Amino acid sequence: MVTIADIEAARARAMGAVFVSPFPHSETISKLSGNKVFFKLENLQMTGSFKERGALNKILSLDDSERRRGVIAASAGNHAQGVAYHATRNGVAATIVMPIATPLIKVMSTKNYGATVVLHGVNYDEAYEEAQRIRAAEDRVFVHAFDDDLVIAGQGTVGLELLEQNPYLDAVIVPIGGGGLISGIATALKETNPKIKVIGVQTTALPSMRAALAAGAPVLVPAAKTIADGIAVRRAGERTLPMVQRYVDEIVHVDEEEIAAAILLLLEREKTVAEGAGAAALAALVQGKTGLRGKKVGVLVCGGNIDVTLLSRIIERGLVKDGRMVRMRVHVPDHPGSLHRLTGLIAHHRANILSIEHDRSFGKVALGDTAVDCTLETRGREHIAEIKAALAATGWTVDALEG
Amino acid sequence: MVTIADIEAARARAMGAVFVSPFPHSETISKLSGNKVFFKLENLQMTGSFKERGALNKILSLDDSERRRGVIAASAGNHAQGVAYHATRNGVAATIVMPIATPLIKVMSTKNYGATVVLHGVNYDEAYEEAQRIRAAEDRVFVHAFDDDLVIAGQGTVGLELLEQNPYLDAVIVPIGGGGLISGIATALKETNPKIKVIGVQTTALPSMRAALAAGAPVLVPAAKTIADGIAVRRAGERTLPMVQRYVDEIVHVDEEEIAAAILLLLEREKTVAEGAGAAALAALVQGKTGLRGKKVGVLVCGGNIDVTLLSRIIERGLVKDGRMVRMRVHVPDHPGSLHRLTGLIAHHRANILSIEHDRSFGKVALGDTAVDCTLETRGREHIAEIKAALAATGWTVDALEG
Repeated sequence: MVTIADIEAARARAMGAVFVSPFPHSETISKLSGNKVFFKLENLQMTGSFKERGALNKILSLDDSERRRGVIAASAGNHAQGVAYHATRNGVAATIVMPIATPLIKVMSTKNYGATVVLHGVNYDEAYEEAQRIRAAEDRVFVHAFDDDLVIAGQGTVGLELLEQNPYLDAVIVPIGGGGLISGIATALKETNPKIKVIGVQTTALPSMRAALAAGAPVLVPAAKTIADGIAVRRAGERTLPMVQRYVDEIVHVDEEEIAAAILLLLEREKTVAEGAGAAALAALVQGKTGLRGKKVGVLVCGGNIDVTLLSRIIERGLVKDGRMVRMRVHVPDHPGSLHRLTGLIAHHRANILSIEHDRSFGKVALGDTAVDCTLETRGREHIAEIKAALAATGWTVDALEG
Repeated sequence: MVTIADIEAARARAMGAVFVSPFPHSETISKLSGNKVFFKLENLQMTGSFKERGALNKILSLDDSERRRGVIAASAGNHAQGVAYHATRNGVAATIVMPIATPLIKVMSTKNYGATVVLHGVNYDEAYEEAQRIRAAEDRVFVHAFDDDLVIAGQGTVGLELLEQNPYLDAVIVPIGGGGLISGIATALKETNPKIKVIGVQTTALPSMRAALAAGAPVLVPAAKTIADGIAVRRAGERTLPMVQRYVDEIVHVDEEEIAAAILLLLEREKTVAEGAGAAALAALVQGKTGLRGKKVGVLVCGGNIDVTLLSRIIERGLVKDGRMVRMRVHVPDHPGSLHRLTGLIAHHRANILSIEHDRSFGKVALGDTAVDCTLETRGREHIAEIKAALAATGWTVDALEG
C-alpha cells in the first residue's frame, strides 16, 4: 500500500511542475451548509484536473529504457490530457487510446499536448483492451488512470497541500471514480492526523466503490449515463479498494440533479467552472449527505473539463428551477388585440419575453380562445406568482408549462 | 497622489481580511498570444471582484466618529458588494443606493452582505445624486468607487501581490473604468520597477479615459450599452487621471465581440468565470492590441459577477462562431419521406439535431418544395461543410442561416 513517504517522494519529484492550486474560503457556501468551507481548485491545473499529478509521478519514475519505449494509456478524458501533457514535457512518447465517440474537443486537446491519439472501441473498456494490445506489441509502459501505486501517490500530493494550506481541517470531501484520488489524499491526511474525517462521494448512477466495499472485492456495476463522466468508473481498483477500506470514513451518493445544481452554484457563486465529477463533493455537502455541521471542511473541485454546451443547458435548467425563467401557456380570446394586451401586461410587470408562440389549432383550447406559449425571464418565484395573478385577474386561464 | 507607501499601509491594514488571489500561468493563452501569460484571479475574491480591497482600506481608515455615522455608496455592481461586505464585517452601517433597474440578484447579494439598499434613479448618475443627498442628510461618509485616495491605495495592493507572485513580469494589462484599479497597480509597479509596462484597456463603447487624456481633464462621454458594465464609467476620476498620465504606458480598446470571445476563452480554457470587464484585459491581449510578444505578462481578471443568463447566451453565440452550432435551411421535396431522409442524412454524419422546424407556407420556397430549418450541434467548420456537401449531393438546396 502507498504510504505518506511515497506521497512525499512524489511531491519532491514533481516539485515546480505541478501548480499548487488555491484553497480559498467560501463565505456563501459556508453559510449555506453551516460549516467553514474551503474549495481545493484542482480544476485550475494546467490540463483542467488533478489527473496530471499521478501521471507526472509515474512518468518521472520511469527508467531510461522505459522512457525510450514510451507510455500508453486509455482514457476519454482528464487522464488522457494529464499523461499527454507531462509525457511530452518530459520527452517521453505517449499514445492515448480514446473511445471513438470521444468529443472532438477532448481529442484535439490531447493531440495538442503532444500525444498520439488512437480512436478505438465504443466505450472505455474496448479502448482499454486496445491500449493493452498496443502496449504488448510496442513494449510500452501502461499508465493506469487510478490502479497504480505511483499514480495514487501522485494524487496524494493534493493531501499534503491541504494540510499546509489549512492545518485545522476537520473533514475533507473527495469524489470517487476508481478511487485513486481519495486513496492518495486519505493516506496523506490520516497518516498525519487520523482525526481528519475523509468522506468519499460517488454518483448514484455508478456506485462501484460501495459495491466493492459490500463485496469485499472490486465488482463490475452496470453501465449508466451520468454528467459526472470523470467518476463514471464501473469497477473500483484492486489497489485503491484496500486503501479506501483502511482510511475512508464514509461514502455518500449524489444524483444527477444534485450534481447539476452544484455545478451552477460553483459557477454563479464561486466563479469557477467544475465538471460533473468536480461538483460532486460540493453536491454532497449542500444536500446534507455528510452530516457535517460547524466543521472546517475541505471540498475537492477535482476537475473543470466540462463541455460548454452542457454548461449552457445546466444554466438554463437551473434558471427554470430558481424561477428565473418560466414557460406558461395563456389562453386569450381569439380576436385582434389580445396578444397586444398580453405583451403589455408582461411588460408592465417587467418580465423579459424570451420567446412567444401562438397556437390556434392544436392543444386543449376552448373554442373562441387561442393559446399563447410564453417563455419569460423573471426575477424569482414571487415575480412569477405576481405575473400569473395579474394574468388571472384579466379572466384568462394560465397553465404552467415549466417552472 | 497615492504613493507606494500608501499602498503598503493599505496592505498592512487589510492583512488577513483580503484573499491573496492566485496568479496561475496559462499554457494555452501563452501559446495563443506568443507570451508567457499569468492570470490574476480577482474574480475569486469574496464578493467576486477586486473592489472590496479599496472599500476595506477606506472603512479601516475611518475614525470612531465616522464609524458611528456609517458609510454610503452608489453602485449597481461590484463596489456595492465590496462596501456592504467589509462595512458589515467591521461593524459599520452601510447604505448603498442602486439604480431601480439593478438586477435582483445584485440587490439581494448586497442586502445579504448586510447593507441597507435604497433603489433610486434610472441610472448610476441619479443613484449617485441620491446617495449624496442621503450622505448630507445623515452625515455619513461617502465611499467613492474609484476617485478616492484610500480606495486607490486599496486597489494598489493587487500590484504588490503581482510583484511578489512573479518578480520577473515585463508587462501588466489592466481594465479601466474610472481608473482606480490601474492607478493603484501602476503606482505599486512603477515605484518598484519602472521598466514594467502598464497597459490599460477600455471598451470602445465608453472610452472615458482616452477622452480625459486627450482633453487633459475628465470629460463626460455619451452613455452606451456594454457587456463590460464593470468598466462602464462615463467620466474618468479627478484623482485617477493624473496617476494614469504619470504611470500608464498605453491605453487600448476592445469591442463587445472581442470581450464576449474572451469571456468564453476564460470559461472554456481557464475554467474561470469572468464578467465583461474581467475579460477585457485578456481580449486586448489575444486580439493583438498590445503589441506584446515573448514577454511575461500579467493579465487582470478583475471580476466575475456576470449574470448566468448572459453567460449562457455568450456560450451559444460562441458555439455558433466556432462552428459547433449551426442553423441551416434545407429545401426538400414536399412529399412524404423527405423529412425522414433528411434526418437520416444528418444522423449519418453524426450531428446532433437541437431543433427542427418545417415551414410550408412562408419564405422563398420553390413550389413543390418545403423548407426545413435545422439547428444542429456540430464538431466544427469542417463538419458543417461535410454535412452541407452531403445535403447538396442529394440535389437539395441549402441556405446558411447562421454559422
